Amino acid sequence: MGDIRTRLFVDGPLAAGQSVRIEGAQAHYLVNVLRLGAGEAVELFDGASGGWRAEIVEAGKRAVLLDVVAQERVQAMPPDVWLLFAPIKKARTDFIVEKATEMGVRRIRPVFTRYTNSERVRPDKLRAHCIEAAEQCGGTFVPELDAAAPLDRVLGDWPEDRRLMFCDETMVAETGLAALRDAGQGPWAILIGPEGGFAPEEAERIRAMPQAVSVTLGPRILRADTAAVAALTLWQAALGDWR
Amino acid sequence: MGDIRTRLFVDGPLAAGQSVRIEGAQAHYLVNVLRLGAGEAVELFDGASGGWRAEIVEAGKRAVLLDVVAQERVQAMPPDVWLLFAPIKKARTDFIVEKATEMGVRRIRPVFTRYTNSERVRPDKLRAHCIEAAEQCGGTFVPELDAAAPLDRVLGDWPEDRRLMFCDETMVAETGLAALRDAGQGPWAILIGPEGGFAPEEAERIRAMPQAVSVTLGPRILRADTAAVAALTLWQAALGDWR
Repeated sequence: MGDIRTRLFVDGPLAAGQSVRIEGAQAHYLVNVLRLGAGEAVELFDGASGGWRAEIVEAGKRAVLLDVVAQERVQAMPPDVWLLFAPIKKARTDFIVEKATEMGVRRIRPVFTRYTNSERVRPDKLRAHCIEAAEQCGGTFVPELDAAAPLDRVLGDWPEDRRLMFCDETMVAETGLAALRDAGQGPWAILIGPEGGFAPEEAERIRAMPQAVSVTLGPRILRADTAAVAALTLWQAALGDWR
Repeated sequence: MGDIRTRLFVDGPLAAGQSVRIEGAQAHYLVNVLRLGAGEAVELFDGASGGWRAEIVEAGKRAVLLDVVAQERVQAMPPDVWLLFAPIKKARTDFIVEKATEMGVRRIRPVFTRYTNSERVRPDKLRAHCIEAAEQCGGTFVPELDAAAPLDRVLGDWPEDRRLMFCDETMVAETGLAALRDAGQGPWAILIGPEGGFAPEEAERIRAMPQAVSVTLGPRILRADTAAVAALTLWQAALGDWR
């Protein structure tokens, strides 16, 4: 019988009784890697309507045809938190996007800072990493992924009611767990710097924002992907859905 | 002038006035990547005696000769916490070792669990990752790295006074920040499972240990490397040197 733990993201909206045709890498994965055939079940999700039981009707070499049977899990939205990060080397940028999805964020915003030293960001490739991470981590949500934009411009348009957890490498103070809790619930974002840190004028500008809450991530320098997971852990434990 | 932020681990003990000869990858990095020459300064550390200013005397193609000038930073030890993890695919095992070093642990112990599905662990390669991470993160300590051992045997010899933070995927409860704080200071270890989780009998055995403190890492399933960073963040924030 099919392994219902096999999970695939498809473009929605899904509904009971629907036929879904899967091609490309996902079809290859079902047929050639997992060797699933007609009658076996998988879970489909579209990022908005929970998890659906679907059964394979036809497993061809190029395409797999499935029938959507019933919704078996309700949609689970992560808390309203964004991750802003400065793109770094490709492998680590991929990791950041993957980890943000696993940890639970609504939106991922790559930002170019003064010291960002990065190749071009490929939104389609990053989106594929988001989807794969969502499939693996059992979530039913895929974070929204923005095109990369200059930090200055992003901060210039910053929403008045959205707090910003600023991971400040130059600060050696408290972890900020208490600071995060004091700042309280509501829309949030987390800003992680590039390998070289923020330029002094960038850091000053961020600290001056009324929405900013400065938080330190310990006495050692963390790589950007490590910092992303650590910051998201602190936030989720203090204010998010890990409480 | 030399960039003192260039940091290299060398086998110690270091002392002022000493001559140090560096070969292989480290020499290549200094001469061919950073293009450092005679008179330039780097920081050396041996994992036990802090950070030392050293000046290049001779930069050859195969070897670099340095003079150790003076100790400029005192030794900074991470808290007495170990990381136990089940080795996974090579790239992610490398990441776990790197991240454990950045986050600050004393000792890294790979353990084989019932569901561990891993290639052979290469201690020499993992040690190289530890050293590189220590060089990058500005630490002066390199974690001790054990040979991989069966979990059963490791738990059979478990020190009576060392608490064990058990990252239990099946638990959907509190984050355990409070549980960690309640359990209090002292020697600790953190245990992260393999991709497939722990076998039921393994989880039962661990939960039954008087030293065990069960902690959940949120509602989504985390990959093992993400879980390692998340668990270390919670521990460092609750009991370690991030407070």
